[in-house]
Amino acid sequence: MDHRRILRHFNDCETGMTATELIRKKRDGGSLTAEELRFLIDSYVKGQIPDYQMSSFLMATFFRGMNPVETSTFTDLMLHSGDVIDLSAISGVKVDKHSTGGVGDKISLLLAPIVAACGVPVPMISGRGLGHTGGTLDKLESIPGFNTSLSIEEYKKVIAEIGVVMIGQTKEIAPADKKMYALRDVTATVECIPLIAGSIMSKKLAEGIDALVLDVKTGRGAFMPTYERSVELARTLVDIGTSFGKETIGFITDMNQPLGYAIGNWNEVVESVEGLRGRDLPDIMELTYVLSGAMVMLGKKAETLEEGIEVCERVVANGSAYKKFVDLVRRQGGNPEFLDHPERYPVSQYTVPINAPKSGVVTSIDSLELGLSSILLGAGRTKVDDVIDPKAGILLAKKAGDAIATGDLLATISTDKKESIDSVTARVLAAYEIGDKAPAASPLVISQVDRHGVRKFSLRN
Amino acid sequence: MDHRRILRHFNDCETGMTATELIRKKRDGGSLTAEELRFLIDSYVKGQIPDYQMSSFLMATFFRGMNPVETSTFTDLMLHSGDVIDLSAISGVKVDKHSTGGVGDKISLLLAPIVAACGVPVPMISGRGLGHTGGTLDKLESIPGFNTSLSIEEYKKVIAEIGVVMIGQTKEIAPADKKMYALRDVTATVECIPLIAGSIMSKKLAEGIDALVLDVKTGRGAFMPTYERSVELARTLVDIGTSFGKETIGFITDMNQPLGYAIGNWNEVVESVEGLRGRDLPDIMELTYVLSGAMVMLGKKAETLEEGIEVCERVVANGSAYKKFVDLVRRQGGNPEFLDHPERYPVSQYTVPINAPKSGVVTSIDSLELGLSSILLGAGRTKVDDVIDPKAGILLAKKAGDAIATGDLLATISTDKKESIDSVTARVLAAYEIGDKAPAASPLVISQVDRHGVRKFSLRN
Repeated sequence: MDHRRILRHFNDCETGMTATELIRKKRDGGSLTAEELRFLIDSYVKGQIPDYQMSSFLMATFFRGMNPVETSTFTDLMLHSGDVIDLSAISGVKVDKHSTGGVGDKISLLLAPIVAACGVPVPMISGRGLGHTGGTLDKLESIPGFNTSLSIEEYKKVIAEIGVVMIGQTKEIAPADKKMYALRDVTATVECIPLIAGSIMSKKLAEGIDALVLDVKTGRGAFMPTYERSVELARTLVDIGTSFGKETIGFITDMNQPLGYAIGNWNEVVESVEGLRGRDLPDIMELTYVLSGAMVMLGKKAETLEEGIEVCERVVANGSAYKKFVDLVRRQGGNPEFLDHPERYPVSQYTVPINAPKSGVVTSIDSLELGLSSILLGAGRTKVDDVIDPKAGILLAKKAGDAIATGDLLATISTDKKESIDSVTARVLAAYEIGDKAPAASPLVISQVDRHGVRKFSLRN
Repeated sequence: MDHRRILRHFNDCETGMTATELIRKKRDGGSLTAEELRFLIDSYVKGQIPDYQMSSFLMATFFRGMNPVETSTFTDLMLHSGDVIDLSAISGVKVDKHSTGGVGDKISLLLAPIVAACGVPVPMISGRGLGHTGGTLDKLESIPGFNTSLSIEEYKKVIAEIGVVMIGQTKEIAPADKKMYALRDVTATVECIPLIAGSIMSKKLAEGIDALVLDVKTGRGAFMPTYERSVELARTLVDIGTSFGKETIGFITDMNQPLGYAIGNWNEVVESVEGLRGRDLPDIMELTYVLSGAMVMLGKKAETLEEGIEVCERVVANGSAYKKFVDLVRRQGGNPEFLDHPERYPVSQYTVPINAPKSGVVTSIDSLELGLSSILLGAGRTKVDDVIDPKAGILLAKKAGDAIATGDLLATISTDKKESIDSVTARVLAAYEIGDKAPAASPLVISQVDRHGVRKFSLRN
């Protein structure tokens, strides 16, 4: 029964590497050389290695991991399976942000125009929402006319003209990742840090960036549920960025309750516009300023993070950040009328208030449940070809720590799907935990990870 | 990015289990229920679950294993993917033997007629050789005319008539195993004890047996290289047999040097005939008697193993075992002339003696190297469709413990492949380790495994 060893033994002399041998090497705890990884990935993309060998390799990698050199090589192979955009003709340090995704996470919509308004170019290629976390593209596309499907040439032109561009992934970007991700998705090999990190970074490095800020969520509504795993992911991402010569800073941030009050695509655009216009949205603006401040620092427009934050606050206060957002919307074909006049936007057929069943204090809000609820309302997808209803969503009236009396409004749901109202109402009620006393205050930005290591986050003030 | 959980969540309500979910469960250390395993295996056989999901599941199983209930269920599913032969019309306790395969292992050829001559029916379905260990079918087919491709009906007829039958696997037997094994072979998921055990036992249980003896090889030329893993495999096989109500006894036996002096298909038939005719072949006959004695005991023709061995020795001494072999050969279409007159058998074009390069004592013979050498001579396969040369092989003149002088004959190789002579000569020389003093005597049958546990093997005499 041990003929495989012999087959391999014989093949070695004739044809060099075989996929089976490399799967076995990883399975048995070995590290693959750059040549071996290249053979695997390149042959897979060319269709010479079948899905069933790649999925077996991915599962072996799930158990055995990859060392930093393998992870970096893997990223490089995915990156160079497609085009790497050259933005060297554009002056300045180009900086982007990536978030691992959260419920109500509309930070990109605020941060991109803020950082661009500070003079740091922001070339951003985002994904669509799938599952309980929304996608930046879907939010942008809720603005009538906004076109996220620009060609690489147009992408370069827009950033050269206005210092910011926000598009979707094109087929030229990391096709190996696209093929591999589709396979991982159906073979239970997604939750593997080197594979996740390689997937994220290959797409970000293709954008033409010089530096990168990462928002790695932790907690109930996050992709990485534990703090330790979030830190491990952040470290791996920072290591890859560093190995490619791109300064990378990661922040571990809390996703135990949704960010802000708005969930749903247009809802979140409206909330972002309010923030850009200077409304005080505690968690939204806190996170926006930390991330954008870091980007401004990496973009050499501030010496420190604190100074970066100040610069960002200034462009919000003087209106130039909002103006930049309007420029972006207009430049990418969107109609800015609705930004100034959200009351003119179409409304859902059903708008249903959900009231508190008892009095007390909101101790927590399950963001995963709210994310799932928003899908049921029409705001998200369970399959890639589901159509999104931009109007649908949830507006929270209360957040963790808020005192409530019986009958107080907790949240309002908006949907065209009558059949979803009852189940979503039950889910939203279940997501609100109501207790006797306010929960202990917990930080929104928990820690910072860079090439020097991990440390508890704090600002000198 | 965590949309899979949601997809699954939604699908649960609609379509029940999904393969991805079950892969994840195994991956995360869970145990699958009988229903879950049935869904996986049945859907895979029907082509509803693709290879890439099954290979990912198999790799997760490699790392997580299966508990005894899962292993038994898995075996049952493979077994019932095809026909289970009913031999209840044949009186007596039907007993077979399975060996995990070794170099020079021709024990089935001796043991089947011996046990049948004792009045215990032996229904044997064997495999072909692939890799460095030979296959019983190839050995039998080296007898001109011998037909191993009987239908299930003919198989039943032959065993009813002469009490023994030896055929190859038919397509009706465990088709799920066939499909799964082909996938395991190319995805580095072969070396996983529950999968190996399920594969072996599903085929054996389909034969119509009432009891089973197992020869689990350990050492350099064996599938399981370490003693501990061999014991683990034996225990798993015995557990499965027991869970199916079939009394099962396993022996762990040494495969650090080849069994007997003959390697190669016709060579091994000749050596088997010599043993059946009463020639004293120390290791061959020792192992044959232990295994056949155990079969006779399981077949209720002896009270103890020792008594079983005596019964077997008697049928060899009185010629009835050899007569049974001749009957079998004739009944399955073979020409018994060559058994009595091996000198009439065709000979290889090249017969090359290999002489000792120095004097001393043979301390060990690397059976893996000799197995690989025999493939190069034409006696084995590296691919399933390779054609075997029945004449090709190696005849050892010296075994471990033998004293030698420089120039003494160590072995003779026979082949029609001139191009292989030099490399095989070098390999055979390298396989012989020559030292100053004889190696310490080590037992051929090391331990015995049955439903009561594992114990050191010994005979009361």
